Amino acid sequence: MTAPCPLCEPAPERVLWQDAEARVILADEPGYPGFCRVIWRDHVREMTDLPAPARARLLALVLAVEAALRAVLAPDKVNLASLGNVVPHLHWHVIPRFEGDPSWPGAVWAPRAREGAARVVDVEALTEAIASAMAAP
Amino acid sequence: MTAPCPLCEPAPERVLWQDAEARVILADEPGYPGFCRVIWRDHVREMTDLPAPARARLLALVLAVEAALRAVLAPDKVNLASLGNVVPHLHWHVIPRFEGDPSWPGAVWAPRAREGAARVVDVEALTEAIASAMAAP
Repeated sequence: MTAPCPLCEPAPERVLWQDAEARVILADEPGYPGFCRVIWRDHVREMTDLPAPARARLLALVLAVEAALRAVLAPDKVNLASLGNVVPHLHWHVIPRFEGDPSWPGAVWAPRAREGAARVVDVEALTEAIASAMAAP
Repeated sequence: MTAPCPLCEPAPERVLWQDAEARVILADEPGYPGFCRVIWRDHVREMTDLPAPARARLLALVLAVEAALRAVLAPDKVNLASLGNVVPHLHWHVIPRFEGDPSWPGAVWAPRAREGAARVVDVEALTEAIASAMAAP
């Protein structure tokens, strides 16, 4: 028996936006408030396994989340990554980064150098900002 | 004095593809043969600082490199990332990943668990595959 894919059959999630093709969840990894994931609905491995229109829609959603995070949290940098070595189901990490966060200026996958400051995320404002960015032409 | 940006004024690079807006270099980070970087020409910080047509062109180039790496190296997974915390000049890491590479299945920024196997990259084939992917409709 193969274990079910945790993105096909997820544990309870905090969904900020979704449609028939993709969803955005607030992952809120410890030390990284506002850490979002954009998850493609279908169990697809690589970006280049998607047809061109689907690639464009997924990337537009990733960049809408980036725009929303910048508007709501004003991070020092946004990090974008699609890795999937452990869970090969297409998903993007969209991570607001702040000077002094646990692994700054390294990647969030680098060893943590410190605890980082607490930061409250206005989830309602973030949700609205994603919807607004997705509605923009 | 601020240090010059290392992507605006690079050390010698192995350029695989370029046009007026962007270039693809073979970074070949130790332990990660075929590791490519796609570098936007202008010193821009975030994807959402680019106008929409430029975003689309840069992402098309990133995915052309993914397609070329898959065609030439058949990696177990491709990792895509735009971080820029250290060098905030828009660039994408396009990384062919193999089971047993130094940090597999972690990110390449995670601690290395092993040396990984040597692997020869056919640079000529990779260069041709990128050009071919960029020429495709």
